[in-house]
Amino acid sequence: MSNEVRASTADQAEFRGELFAAGLLIESGANGVYGHGEPFERVRDRLTKVVSEIAGAEGASKLSFPPVMPRRDLETNGYVANFPHLTGSIFGFEGSESEARAQGELAAVHEDWSGFQSQTDVMMVPAACYPLYPAIAGRGPLDPGGACFDLGDCWVFRNEPSLDPARRQSFRVHELVRIGEPEAVMEWRSEWCQRGAEMLGELGLDSHVASANDPFFGRQGRLLAANQTADDLKWEILVPITGSEPTACASFNYHLDHFGEVWGLKLSDGTTAHTACLGFGQDRIVLALLRTHGLDPSKWPTSVRDRLGV
Amino acid sequence: MSNEVRASTADQAEFRGELFAAGLLIESGANGVYGHGEPFERVRDRLTKVVSEIAGAEGASKLSFPPVMPRRDLETNGYVANFPHLTGSIFGFEGSESEARAQGELAAVHEDWSGFQSQTDVMMVPAACYPLYPAIAGRGPLDPGGACFDLGDCWVFRNEPSLDPARRQSFRVHELVRIGEPEAVMEWRSEWCQRGAEMLGELGLDSHVASANDPFFGRQGRLLAANQTADDLKWEILVPITGSEPTACASFNYHLDHFGEVWGLKLSDGTTAHTACLGFGQDRIVLALLRTHGLDPSKWPTSVRDRLGV
Repeated sequence: MSNEVRASTADQAEFRGELFAAGLLIESGANGVYGHGEPFERVRDRLTKVVSEIAGAEGASKLSFPPVMPRRDLETNGYVANFPHLTGSIFGFEGSESEARAQGELAAVHEDWSGFQSQTDVMMVPAACYPLYPAIAGRGPLDPGGACFDLGDCWVFRNEPSLDPARRQSFRVHELVRIGEPEAVMEWRSEWCQRGAEMLGELGLDSHVASANDPFFGRQGRLLAANQTADDLKWEILVPITGSEPTACASFNYHLDHFGEVWGLKLSDGTTAHTACLGFGQDRIVLALLRTHGLDPSKWPTSVRDRLGV
Repeated sequence: MSNEVRASTADQAEFRGELFAAGLLIESGANGVYGHGEPFERVRDRLTKVVSEIAGAEGASKLSFPPVMPRRDLETNGYVANFPHLTGSIFGFEGSESEARAQGELAAVHEDWSGFQSQTDVMMVPAACYPLYPAIAGRGPLDPGGACFDLGDCWVFRNEPSLDPARRQSFRVHELVRIGEPEAVMEWRSEWCQRGAEMLGELGLDSHVASANDPFFGRQGRLLAANQTADDLKWEILVPITGSEPTACASFNYHLDHFGEVWGLKLSDGTTAHTACLGFGQDRIVLALLRTHGLDPSKWPTSVRDRLGV
């Protein structure tokens, strides 16, 4: 019943304890599920505004999506097949009064009531951009030049409990998406990767860019990951937080025509659109700032506070 | 597998179609799960700020919580027993490579893969204040006078698909919570109910306050609902949106010492705390504004736009 908790290093568990003690994170009892105190949220909110200001100046359209999405879409786009270990599918109760009573009695003593649950039509959103593609495809062909979207901060879910405060089950990612011709999409990704690295540098974070791959499941997944790396489809900005390796705080992903094909996304000339997305891991960036500059944002370097307006 | 869709009136389905056409709501294919366009979000964001400004002036502490919470807490506080029909419990995959392959093949053709899923330790948050009580109880007795919390907009989940755009599976509620002595808590609820009604009136909404009850499940639930009504524990502000009845857009709930007892919430003198919460249904209030004043916020009455700053 209970999920395996990922190993964490001593300094990760210690940092989590410091964040709890400072009221920046609020313990829930579930590893990777935390409330947040006001200073944490204030910094995150300012990060969001900084990114949205730049995206808005580029003409990005703002759209926002809830933390759940149709199960059918995650069956269609291959997420259930490729990332089964990370999915969260929502179950509910559709039984009788006596079944409700039996379920409630088991729940009251924390015993297994899963047998009374059946799968609903919705799942947790695992990546903030996934709800966007079918929505845009449903509008018909894009205008000439394609489109750019600012999805703001979105709650995403990954089923991976951990004691590392930077590895969450439920966390915020600020995603931007570009849909267009291959060259335009690739150029957009390159510009934003450079801009993102500069932005994190201005915030006093020691970052570098590296090629990366998604955590596909199992043996077949290793092949998919190798292809992704060979085609240079995923870049990450890595920042030291805790642990022996730096942590991915932003990613820049070129999907070729994958989502274009899956959802029938068409450009104005009728050809299949290419797509790229980028995601700033908002909770991770705030953690990196707290780890680098200290737990009290009012004492951060003036240049960092000025850039964020905190 | 698929959930029953609640009946809706013709004008509810029609209003939903208008909201889709105007880009204010974005269709997902799942009833009650929608994206939102920028004007919708801008109005909601301003509503949130209006409420938080008042709460902040009262000294409320800001805390925020994710859309998921520990399953154990919803077993402990009675939600699973009392509202089984509304719960969303999160399942995940913990199987082998061959099981992952079998699950993925079923998912790809939209057949039943629920047999490969097992229940995780987390569930959807059904009410924004539920994660707060155990977190505050864990801090020990409250300071003299108790405490007030502003939880901001929180995503909550109810397993009730509907064509009525005001009845969602996933939606935002702005909750405030008061924890203290019975008189203080009751007075706070009364003041905020009056303030909430005034606020909605200033926004040009035709509202009235009524006693109400929660949608407890089944025959035993009818008894719980009757007791709740008899004790006058739940008030709602009702606003016409669509359908034959007005829609609850805010609720003001006195819990007596229920959560105090469940979580061991203590006042400074060691007695058990009483609690009250209030929730503004942010998506519903925006819908009421759009229905009342029209789908283009730039053409709303000046007094409404001034109050919101939109």
